Amino acid sequence: MSAIITLTTDFGVGSPYVAAMKGVILSINPNVTLVDISHAVEHQNVRQGSLVLEDVVDRFPSGTIHVVVVDPGVGTERKIVYARMGEQHFVAPDNGLLGRLAQRTPPSRIISLENPNFWLPQVSATFHGRDVMAPVAARLSLGLDPEQLGKRLDRLVQLPWPEVRVAGNKIEGTVQSIDSFGNLITDITADSLAKAPRGEEVTITCDEHQTQGIFQTYADQPEMTFLALIGSSGKLELSIVGESAAAMLGIRVGTPVVVAW
Amino acid sequence: MSAIITLTTDFGVGSPYVAAMKGVILSINPNVTLVDISHAVEHQNVRQGSLVLEDVVDRFPSGTIHVVVVDPGVGTERKIVYARMGEQHFVAPDNGLLGRLAQRTPPSRIISLENPNFWLPQVSATFHGRDVMAPVAARLSLGLDPEQLGKRLDRLVQLPWPEVRVAGNKIEGTVQSIDSFGNLITDITADSLAKAPRGEEVTITCDEHQTQGIFQTYADQPEMTFLALIGSSGKLELSIVGESAAAMLGIRVGTPVVVAW
Amino acid sequence: MSAIITLTTDFGVGSPYVAAMKGVILSINPNVTLVDISHAVEHQNVRQGSLVLEDVVDRFPSGTIHVVVVDPGVGTERKIVYARMGEQHFVAPDNGLLGRLAQRTPPSRIISLENPNFWLPQVSATFHGRDVMAPVAARLSLGLDPEQLGKRLDRLVQLPWPEVRVAGNKIEGTVQSIDSFGNLITDITADSLAKAPRGEEVTITCDEHQTQGIFQTYADQPEMTFLALIGSSGKLELSIVGESAAAMLGIRVGTPVVVAW
Repeated sequence: MSAIITLTTDFGVGSPYVAAMKGVILSINPNVTLVDISHAVEHQNVRQGSLVLEDVVDRFPSGTIHVVVVDPGVGTERKIVYARMGEQHFVAPDNGLLGRLAQRTPPSRIISLENPNFWLPQVSATFHGRDVMAPVAARLSLGLDPEQLGKRLDRLVQLPWPEVRVAGNKIEGTVQSIDSFGNLITDITADSLAKAPRGEEVTITCDEHQTQGIFQTYADQPEMTFLALIGSSGKLELSIVGESAAAMLGIRVGTPVVVAW
Repeated sequence: MSAIITLTTDFGVGSPYVAAMKGVILSINPNVTLVDISHAVEHQNVRQGSLVLEDVVDRFPSGTIHVVVVDPGVGTERKIVYARMGEQHFVAPDNGLLGRLAQRTPPSRIISLENPNFWLPQVSATFHGRDVMAPVAARLSLGLDPEQLGKRLDRLVQLPWPEVRVAGNKIEGTVQSIDSFGNLITDITADSLAKAPRGEEVTITCDEHQTQGIFQTYADQPEMTFLALIGSSGKLELSIVGESAAAMLGIRVGTPVVVAW
Repeated sequence: MSAIITLTTDFGVGSPYVAAMKGVILSINPNVTLVDISHAVEHQNVRQGSLVLEDVVDRFPSGTIHVVVVDPGVGTERKIVYARMGEQHFVAPDNGLLGRLAQRTPPSRIISLENPNFWLPQVSATFHGRDVMAPVAARLSLGLDPEQLGKRLDRLVQLPWPEVRVAGNKIEGTVQSIDSFGNLITDITADSLAKAPRGEEVTITCDEHQTQGIFQTYADQPEMTFLALIGSSGKLELSIVGESAAAMLGIRVGTPVVVAW
């Protein structure tokens, strides 16, 4: 069984920068299994990168090493870190990318990457994904003890996120992301909806649009119906059956969503 | 030699949903070789997914497992099936995705997936690709007997497709797909053209556009010429040399094509 | 340790043509490690394909086999070649794709692919990537002696490229490529800038836009600033901090860039 390294970046699908990272990794550990999580994170959108990780990393085997490069501060004083959370390992800039994951699964170890012995001999000022993170991940996959990478840190950088407010018969949240089908994925979890009814007595409002009831799946309603359901990541999701809700309703990340009954 | 699992979906290139499926598969069989066929199938376009498979699956080694997720009916009564056709294995919703392949290579076995022991412990209502098909494919790659997955079925769902009409000196077909170069790929096979002449006495008409002769390759004519040839999948193809015929002529899938001589 | 084959094409991200090539390769050598360099090369843009390779191939381990298919002349008299440059191996049409690499690292061997024993039994006129290059690469990865592929050639086809002119206190170059962030990457190397000052006394002009100084990294200047730096491939790069310089300034490949001090 070979080690697994995943890659998540904002380089754009088809960017040869991703291939450069893979070449560096395979030059150090040719037996590693490489998996692309996504390279379609919006440029420099640290929050979006962080949400992509949240839904996916737990699906990977114990011991997987996740390299995440959404790095608008490349070449500045921002740190690059190794973090272990549960049985998963991460290498990323410490700019908030790993903060949400760390709230869910507090890191058992965080190391600031400071030892250039494990980097490429020449480090550019603008591509630490290739020159620092890729070689470090490859060496970790060969068994390098993370303690050798640098100094321990106590905590990861946290970005502020909108909070979900639960009050009586009302939950107020936000559209957190939009998937490739145009479904609006909110930050309202199935858990927080435990007390809400599922039938027509519950109303979900997003922008000026309303729908009644929380359904099981898209096909529970006819084509072109605006409906709410609990999506595959366990969060309330708003969809238009067979269409892109984001495009048809012109709704963006950050739009408030209210569930009331 | 490790087993091969291919993935074909309509999730969109760069979708983390694909990575979630890969994580599930690698958690069960970390030694499998994963190959993306395409994630750019148009959303919920079962026909397009089916055509993508048709041109590609025979190129893979015997024993390859193809997981195909274009699944507008997810969470409804539509079945999910395992099918064996020739030496290739398939896991897909039974919504017509595998129907065309089955007409060409009648399945030697079809099983309806009914045994939840081989699925993820928690199955969402909206993402059976991750929760049912991925774990089943991974277990097949480890040698699971498909008979254990559920009950035998006699046949796969078939979608109606336009028929090619051959009559005397005339063949009437349809633009079946458009490749990334904008070439118009028809459903008229090289075989059905066996009696047609290749020279200027044959006329090919598509929408209001006409061309004479069937050529070998794009470079047989100067730039910007509208020409017909037998494409790499053995079907009549209409192209504009160096340009996108689809974009320049505004032609879509379903447009009639007539070959006459 | 398994052999590595990389793929670079203009087929478009998500094209099943890429998967067809992978299927052919895995049918011959199921243990090979496949890496996509890019399938987003602009259709038939041999120059762009050639620049993508230039920045990436040296990152791969010795012995890697790079298959490159940007092939507007498929089916014509253009040759398909095997070339060895340094410790890297290439299989590509001989249309200039490998010419720039060959100027930097003169090939130690060039072979014209002429022996159909190593190709697929049926070779289409329009898809030599699948029918000739993929099977040849797979067989090379199994240890086939390249001499068996065909006849030796003395040189590869070279395309003309704009030259960088260095004169006194002035260097004149060109925007050579644009990355997915919209950064303008020029053909002016860090070496050629060795004598240029880094501070405000150096002026960089591109089209009608000017900036002073050559910086280390994007974050050295505030958001929305137009700045010059030495990019990760060792070339002068023009960027707008946090934005796409290409989109905001409407600059394309081929635009002249002048450095003066």
